[in-house]
Amino acid sequence: MDRIVLGHGSGGKLMHELIREQFGPAFGIAGFGDSAILDVNLQKLAFTTDSYVVSPLFFPGGDIGELAVYGTVNDLSVSGARPLYLTAGFIIEEGFPFEHLKAIVVSMSKAAEKAKIKIVAGDTKVVNKGKGDGIFINTSGIGVLSDGIEFSAAKIRGGDTVLVSGQVGNHGVAVMSERNGISFDPPVVSDSAPLNSLIERVCEVTKEVRFMRDPTRGGLATTLKETAIESGKCIRVKERTIPVAPQVKGACDLLGLDPLYVANEGIVVAVVDPSAAEAVLEVMRQHPYGVNAHIIGSGEDSPKGMVLQETRAGGTRIIEMLQGEQLPRIC
Amino acid sequence: MDRIVLGHGSGGKLMHELIREQFGPAFGIAGFGDSAILDVNLQKLAFTTDSYVVSPLFFPGGDIGELAVYGTVNDLSVSGARPLYLTAGFIIEEGFPFEHLKAIVVSMSKAAEKAKIKIVAGDTKVVNKGKGDGIFINTSGIGVLSDGIEFSAAKIRGGDTVLVSGQVGNHGVAVMSERNGISFDPPVVSDSAPLNSLIERVCEVTKEVRFMRDPTRGGLATTLKETAIESGKCIRVKERTIPVAPQVKGACDLLGLDPLYVANEGIVVAVVDPSAAEAVLEVMRQHPYGVNAHIIGSGEDSPKGMVLQETRAGGTRIIEMLQGEQLPRIC
Repeated sequence: MDRIVLGHGSGGKLMHELIREQFGPAFGIAGFGDSAILDVNLQKLAFTTDSYVVSPLFFPGGDIGELAVYGTVNDLSVSGARPLYLTAGFIIEEGFPFEHLKAIVVSMSKAAEKAKIKIVAGDTKVVNKGKGDGIFINTSGIGVLSDGIEFSAAKIRGGDTVLVSGQVGNHGVAVMSERNGISFDPPVVSDSAPLNSLIERVCEVTKEVRFMRDPTRGGLATTLKETAIESGKCIRVKERTIPVAPQVKGACDLLGLDPLYVANEGIVVAVVDPSAAEAVLEVMRQHPYGVNAHIIGSGEDSPKGMVLQETRAGGTRIIEMLQGEQLPRIC
Repeated sequence: MDRIVLGHGSGGKLMHELIREQFGPAFGIAGFGDSAILDVNLQKLAFTTDSYVVSPLFFPGGDIGELAVYGTVNDLSVSGARPLYLTAGFIIEEGFPFEHLKAIVVSMSKAAEKAKIKIVAGDTKVVNKGKGDGIFINTSGIGVLSDGIEFSAAKIRGGDTVLVSGQVGNHGVAVMSERNGISFDPPVVSDSAPLNSLIERVCEVTKEVRFMRDPTRGGLATTLKETAIESGKCIRVKERTIPVAPQVKGACDLLGLDPLYVANEGIVVAVVDPSAAEAVLEVMRQHPYGVNAHIIGSGEDSPKGMVLQETRAGGTRIIEMLQGEQLPRIC
């Protein structure tokens, strides 16, 4: 392959290859996790970046501005950090309506307030008409890690419990429905939400969190596979325990999508010590963004690096990363 | 005006209006300086972001990758911070050649080494063909401030000395020449360079630095005007002391450009106590990136907020910010 294809931005297999073969060696890093954890004068900081190119810019349950704030807040939060400050970089296409820009900026401001973070610096570039697509937004963020907090896939042990904090597939189906002019009754809205307070609650009830990640591009399946590879363990999940809204399931059936590969923007996968599982489930369900939390499976010592799903029919399915691109420009 | 125009990304007057009227009120910040200075657990950090959309991607003396590293390094450095870590966010157009991506990534890696910073996290998004322009790169950076270092336009006093560390206009003319297929003999190359080591040297010889800024988009003129407004002082400069390479002057004459408004990527404007001026000039000139440093003028108590230039002809010219857009997509 000698040219970039949409799949390189999917969060799936092609993107992992791009990171492994290009960015990793050049920048001297093993992989791009949710955040880099840095020691700055004895203070542990998390530092992360994400660009947002979602199309359309406004969709049921959110917009690119809100997404750009929550997405980066969540990348810091799942690293165990308390998000503090964000920067915002705008690349705007010439001719973009001012009223849309205003709506997006107001949405970012509200999202920042809701997530209790501050947007402290910014940048605006304008590109010629036809050389962009309305607006792209980059947000980068820093957060601080409390003493002793260190989430890492390497900490996962056989017997650990795997939870997800909410239903899967809502964001992707909401964006896709807006893009294609399809509506559902009841409507499917994006799950876009800041997860910092939910994750803080979890950390208050247990010190036994091994690892967290938010299953965005590539969906739950890709995140579970990454977790299995990075931990060198097997992740075994039960299909019937993975929460999927009925209308999301219906939409996916209709469109030939698998909800496990559809993007989310407001849920987290958590791997915890089994002794803490019920307490974590309880505290998630008490939180407004975790009412649909479920225990979905467990870590096992083997087969290493694999994700196995017990299907409703009683069989076992091997879950791989997203291949190619199912729904481009979902975030 | 109800739509975004190229001038909103120029670094000049329209961009300042956009910041003052849209981003400032929404995000609760007075303006977007080079970096936000933050207190994080008793540690002073600088945090900044910039997106790079330069066209063409490769130009005499540099490319978008190098620019993306040095630009953010410089924004941290002129805030008085020691740059430490950068993130890199790529927005790539479908169909972009892999070999160009490789060249850009290698260039970023070399630039990071030269600037002695680390790229620690990244993100890649791919947009459909025709919805981008090859590649856009966002870099965000953090740095630490040493005790007592605090550059601020508010510190400028009447009688202070204004210096520039090198010739103005080289970057803009180099990009423009590549874009339009014009060549000069000797060639005009971008001044793109990391300024952290030069600025560190300056801080070693004096504690009397009031303020620094790198005159990128909008050129030296816009930076001087910003400095005058932010300080509430007058900046008075002498045309004959502002260093401009002969071939840049020639190109500007030919094309009807004013070198004072042409973008730079490797020079800094410094305002220092007059007692330190000669020592700062000396240390700049000893540095590879400061051989063409000059004292160009002084701060005065009035007329407040104005920039006055003594012309070669002996007159006085009022310098305003860049109006509209002279050379779009210069960085």
